[in-house]
Amino acid sequence: METYTVGIDIGGTKTLICVANPTHEIILKKRISTTPCDVPETFFNRLFTELKLLLAEKQLSLNHVGGIGIGLPGVVDHETGYLTNAPALPWRDTDVEKLVKHHFKGKVLLNNDVNLAALGEQWIGAAKGVSNFLMITVGTGIGGALILNGELFQGVHKAAGEISHFVITDDETSSEHIYTEEFGSFETVTSGTGIGNRAREYFRKQRKHSLILSLVNHEIEKIGAKEVIEAAIKGDRVALDILEKPLNHMAIGVANIISLLDLEKVVIGGGVPQGGDFYIVEIAKRVRKYTPNQAKIIPASLGNEAGAIGGIAFILGKCRKQVYEMTI
Amino acid sequence: METYTVGIDIGGTKTLICVANPTHEIILKKRISTTPCDVPETFFNRLFTELKLLLAEKQLSLNHVGGIGIGLPGVVDHETGYLTNAPALPWRDTDVEKLVKHHFKGKVLLNNDVNLAALGEQWIGAAKGVSNFLMITVGTGIGGALILNGELFQGVHKAAGEISHFVITDDETSSEHIYTEEFGSFETVTSGTGIGNRAREYFRKQRKHSLILSLVNHEIEKIGAKEVIEAAIKGDRVALDILEKPLNHMAIGVANIISLLDLEKVVIGGGVPQGGDFYIVEIAKRVRKYTPNQAKIIPASLGNEAGAIGGIAFILGKCRKQVYEMTI
Repeated sequence: METYTVGIDIGGTKTLICVANPTHEIILKKRISTTPCDVPETFFNRLFTELKLLLAEKQLSLNHVGGIGIGLPGVVDHETGYLTNAPALPWRDTDVEKLVKHHFKGKVLLNNDVNLAALGEQWIGAAKGVSNFLMITVGTGIGGALILNGELFQGVHKAAGEISHFVITDDETSSEHIYTEEFGSFETVTSGTGIGNRAREYFRKQRKHSLILSLVNHEIEKIGAKEVIEAAIKGDRVALDILEKPLNHMAIGVANIISLLDLEKVVIGGGVPQGGDFYIVEIAKRVRKYTPNQAKIIPASLGNEAGAIGGIAFILGKCRKQVYEMTI
Repeated sequence: METYTVGIDIGGTKTLICVANPTHEIILKKRISTTPCDVPETFFNRLFTELKLLLAEKQLSLNHVGGIGIGLPGVVDHETGYLTNAPALPWRDTDVEKLVKHHFKGKVLLNNDVNLAALGEQWIGAAKGVSNFLMITVGTGIGGALILNGELFQGVHKAAGEISHFVITDDETSSEHIYTEEFGSFETVTSGTGIGNRAREYFRKQRKHSLILSLVNHEIEKIGAKEVIEAAIKGDRVALDILEKPLNHMAIGVANIISLLDLEKVVIGGGVPQGGDFYIVEIAKRVRKYTPNQAKIIPASLGNEAGAIGGIAFILGKCRKQVYEMTI
């Protein structure tokens, strides 16, 4: 029997399910809420009910599925299936693989969501056919993943790509450079959360005229990274000032990685860079100042579907030099 | 016929030749001066004369040699054999492979000296059997090399490991963070040259009591990194102050690489860390502050022979998962 493949990206608030047919075309998609207050068992019961309903739309069942690739917002030991270090989910040290196997007896592969997003972009996205690249997601937090020599590079404890903890300042008076469990130092400055915090702090201290304030009807607490980027794109001076440090730190981080790894491309995704090429252009311009090695800085192309698509790519072995066969 | 293997490490001032017998034991070593004012042709004529004399000590000739692995202080395209970006040597865009082939018809492999040092340390040194590690050399300049998944990682343009260009400050008033052709920004702060410059500048501005001054008979221009480290080991307060920034920048650079690559070990070699475990201990202590990922920081063990030994390892395919056979 020909087999279908499922990719699932479990995020802190939403979960995306994608199904590919035997010729690897994506034929079904569904987004459900993650409702992270759920205990993991309850969530996976609901997830598989939703998956079965989705498959039924094409007269399919789990018996038609050869493998499921699942992305999670944390460090997944893909040998034990345990999820650790996942601040967006309240499932501490959960054996996710066991929970999935309860519902599905076929091939299951788990990985970090950004790792899978990189595999998705490499399979049918912005990094199609690229063997050496860095994937960065700039959203609520900062995520990183590496494809080296054509394969996902995961490190000794499967924790490679933890760029959120980068340190880009030697200012001893700053607390930003000390590693904390919750949020990395690089992340504190460069993430969407960091940009929002920086903007709100700015306007709490001073009431300068800015497009940012118009975008939130002068309600400072409603300012997020989205409004700052939107105002900056329109040339708002205050927004550009607020973004200077986040953009510069991100550029230094990216440049250092290019110096170290001599990559072909850097693919930037996530919510913050959206809205035209402003973010990518600003990063690329600064990166050139900081490294002699050349690499193209490009936007991700699969948006928030990259992780689920990458789950399919991971199962299909698209990340490997050799595609391996699936068996039910 | 059983074959011997030659490893050569060509440095800015000195060149080391090592010869291994058919069972891969190093049986001959010789150090000659590089005299960098030579044109490359003259140098290679002399190098091969010396190599033939060395082999003759064991009644051997170049006919007994299966391959020569050569390390150079620059970026070597190991497909074309061209040497570029080698500030320590005045041989701009030299086709080193052609020069070597003029003297020797067997297998010739060229690579960056730090890459070969990493292969040497992996073969019979501090990183024996380690599949994922960073090698850093702290000497006149800063060098870096990566062994990932058991193999030398070289990047798209064979320029991976260029950590000398790292940027560890966002201080816009500092010129240290702007990339220059000659000396990387990270290198400017952390190298032996940088430490020496920092110390001389310190004493030109103020005449504080310090062991450093006693070590050079109060001749400030004679201060180098060696004296600063020696004084710091003995607890000299001024020396420790001078070293604070170089040590902290190095620790941040190393920690960022560990965050990114989740390595097993970091091997630190070169002239500056010599003289006990002071340097390694100071770096390791600081690295723990800056990254959640764990990796052991250890000293290199092959000293200034690592590059030539690595040249032999490179020829013998010790860096690959499979050892390939040599043929004369």
